[in-house]
Amino acid sequence: MDKTKKSRLLNDIALKTFPGGINHNIRHYDPYPFQTKRANKQYIWDVDDNKYTDYWMGHMALILGHSPENIIENVKQQIDYGTLMGTTNVIALEFANKIQEIFLCSEMVRLSSTGTEATMYATRLARAYTQKKKIVKIEGGWHGGNTALHKSISKPFDKKSSGILEEESKNTIIIPYNDIEKTADIIEENRNDIACVIVEPLLGHGCIPIKIDYLKMLREKTEKIDSILILDEVITGFRLAFGGAQEYYNIKPDLCTFGKISGGGFPIGGITGLKEIMEKSNPIKQKDDLCWIGGGTFSGNPMTMVAGLATIKYLENNKSRVYQKINDLGDKTRKNVDKIFHDSNIKTKTTGLGSLFVTHFLNNEKDDIITARDLESTNMKNQYEYYMMLMSYFDIFFLPSHNGAISDAHNIDDVNHLITSTDKISRELKSN
Amino acid sequence: MDKTKKSRLLNDIALKTFPGGINHNIRHYDPYPFQTKRANKQYIWDVDDNKYTDYWMGHMALILGHSPENIIENVKQQIDYGTLMGTTNVIALEFANKIQEIFLCSEMVRLSSTGTEATMYATRLARAYTQKKKIVKIEGGWHGGNTALHKSISKPFDKKSSGILEEESKNTIIIPYNDIEKTADIIEENRNDIACVIVEPLLGHGCIPIKIDYLKMLREKTEKIDSILILDEVITGFRLAFGGAQEYYNIKPDLCTFGKISGGGFPIGGITGLKEIMEKSNPIKQKDDLCWIGGGTFSGNPMTMVAGLATIKYLENNKSRVYQKINDLGDKTRKNVDKIFHDSNIKTKTTGLGSLFVTHFLNNEKDDIITARDLESTNMKNQYEYYMMLMSYFDIFFLPSHNGAISDAHNIDDVNHLITSTDKISRELKSN
Repeated sequence: MDKTKKSRLLNDIALKTFPGGINHNIRHYDPYPFQTKRANKQYIWDVDDNKYTDYWMGHMALILGHSPENIIENVKQQIDYGTLMGTTNVIALEFANKIQEIFLCSEMVRLSSTGTEATMYATRLARAYTQKKKIVKIEGGWHGGNTALHKSISKPFDKKSSGILEEESKNTIIIPYNDIEKTADIIEENRNDIACVIVEPLLGHGCIPIKIDYLKMLREKTEKIDSILILDEVITGFRLAFGGAQEYYNIKPDLCTFGKISGGGFPIGGITGLKEIMEKSNPIKQKDDLCWIGGGTFSGNPMTMVAGLATIKYLENNKSRVYQKINDLGDKTRKNVDKIFHDSNIKTKTTGLGSLFVTHFLNNEKDDIITARDLESTNMKNQYEYYMMLMSYFDIFFLPSHNGAISDAHNIDDVNHLITSTDKISRELKSN
Repeated sequence: MDKTKKSRLLNDIALKTFPGGINHNIRHYDPYPFQTKRANKQYIWDVDDNKYTDYWMGHMALILGHSPENIIENVKQQIDYGTLMGTTNVIALEFANKIQEIFLCSEMVRLSSTGTEATMYATRLARAYTQKKKIVKIEGGWHGGNTALHKSISKPFDKKSSGILEEESKNTIIIPYNDIEKTADIIEENRNDIACVIVEPLLGHGCIPIKIDYLKMLREKTEKIDSILILDEVITGFRLAFGGAQEYYNIKPDLCTFGKISGGGFPIGGITGLKEIMEKSNPIKQKDDLCWIGGGTFSGNPMTMVAGLATIKYLENNKSRVYQKINDLGDKTRKNVDKIFHDSNIKTKTTGLGSLFVTHFLNNEKDDIITARDLESTNMKNQYEYYMMLMSYFDIFFLPSHNGAISDAHNIDDVNHLITSTDKISRELKSN
């Protein structure tokens, strides 16, 4: 395509540099991804100087848009005061004290540098605390690349992941999302061995909301069998509500992980939860039975802390305005996109909640998207084409077939442009 | 202590915030660590406005010092152009093309966000490529917090780590550092099952150089039994030499991991190595037998890429001056510190290589420090006191008992101050 000529040339180099040309598998799409030059507010530019409205927003992390004016001055200043201390520092303390105020379950905090690290350490902590072996996770659930949780990520869900040993994943038990009965049975069968249940309160894979009764059941069951409930709030924290899914659903987990938004555009991961569990990782108190959790060179680094704290404070001070706005734009998108396709006799379901959404193309009118497995019967070719057309013809960027995230930088004109573009595409897709 | 009154008060808050008051276990020291306020060049300030000469240097990552003038302008500019793309981008491509030029083994690259992630994915890749199970690592070797490598980290070396299952670590085999015969025997015993040998070419734990013959043996043995040799160059990359330990020792591994210095003060981890192995993680080519490696939200983020690239280019353009300078200062430190203590009839061995060093207090004149186990018989109380006195009386900061790292921001006056302070302390310690 002429429009992305430079990207195409650079992609040839990228394929010789990185396996698949990318540094995260989902960043590849056919025929080749554009090479990004820069980003600002709700926009992202490729090397051919195409300007797209960005709905990918840095893996959904940028709730205030790219380089938001109200935080970047703080960040620039910090550069002169050090980007990496490698020591205890007051900025990390202030940041974590804020976290303690926000999440229902937050009694203590441990910072790492990525969500992958946070979920690895949270599940390790659960095993150390309960002295039980099994980790229970959702089919299609995504908790980063760490070994024990890298099971049943995507279809085919029962396929072994190359390079991960049977021994490393056999104590990870899979439960079907939103299926109360089957899940309760599986938990019951393993009731004496379950260290924790870890769940995304909005399934990232397919952007599928959790049923409140399902989440309640997980909370009750884990409590009953003395297991830990871990909410993986890497996506939902500061997104579904300021205090994440635990505020939105008013369910208090034992531990939660956070990341993305909380870093204000800089690398972060973290664990927070009940003191009694968290203290298993206290190297002063637990000399003989310490659960070692990270950490890492970059944990609590002042750049992330300053950017994260500024972001969180801004969200706190503008809570009702920001969440009302982005959630309304999300609702409007879901409703209108599905209506447009419905009017064209194309069956779609735009899943999501609040400011997160993605459109699925159904093969059967009565289909619904309740689990990751439900995606298998959708028309992924149409879905991919829809998102590629948005990008190619209308300069609207979604990582094709992945979740869109509305930020405070987006406005009603952006969403209207998305809707009118969808309308034009619906006629195109229909005639296929 | 009056000197760190504010730190003491904040530490009380930190202990209620973070288990142990820290976000990385080694950042705690008794009675309490100072709380950092800011850092610049070779200096770090605590909240009581004490100004220390910093030899910890952000976990040894800051080879040009804190916030070096020659790179921070680039970094500040990038903030306006986006801190997190979440997409393929030209800055990451340029960065990785530079990496490809530098490391002997570098044919392809994959970026993650931390060293912990890099070693987890490198060993996973080795298992996927070789279809073998066992990972061989050094006793006392440190490769971050990931599960399979979190074994035999520190004394007691055979203790199980709480929260890590027997099943998860039983395929990790431990070899004694620098012991050619015993290591060769262990490798021979497991010859059909070894996916990889992973080794730090300078043991971080105790700052102990590798014997060249030991490293050569590992290279030859792994080749002979069709295993992968992974050099963990997170510390040594851009440190022992511009091209890391593989340049310094002229040994080409199959894979290497990098981190720390390469991020220019921003979070990074990465894997590089032979195309044939790296391509096991190519999601386009390996549809049926893909080895999934990260990645993560923050991989290839433009802040790290810009800061890392500027740092690497600066090092490249000033290679002979920078490495000559910091290595000379390291040599001078090692020689003088040991001479001073020797003259006071205190037996020390300042281990290390080039710009990295740490002083051990020996209980026996003929002791040497060749393995991590050799540290067990040293006088750790004296070591701790030495470093605490440097901090308390002379404003010289080492993370007590941990490695010191000289940066290009340090100068001969700093090292002379360290030496004269050591001289004064030696008289104090002697009289104990």
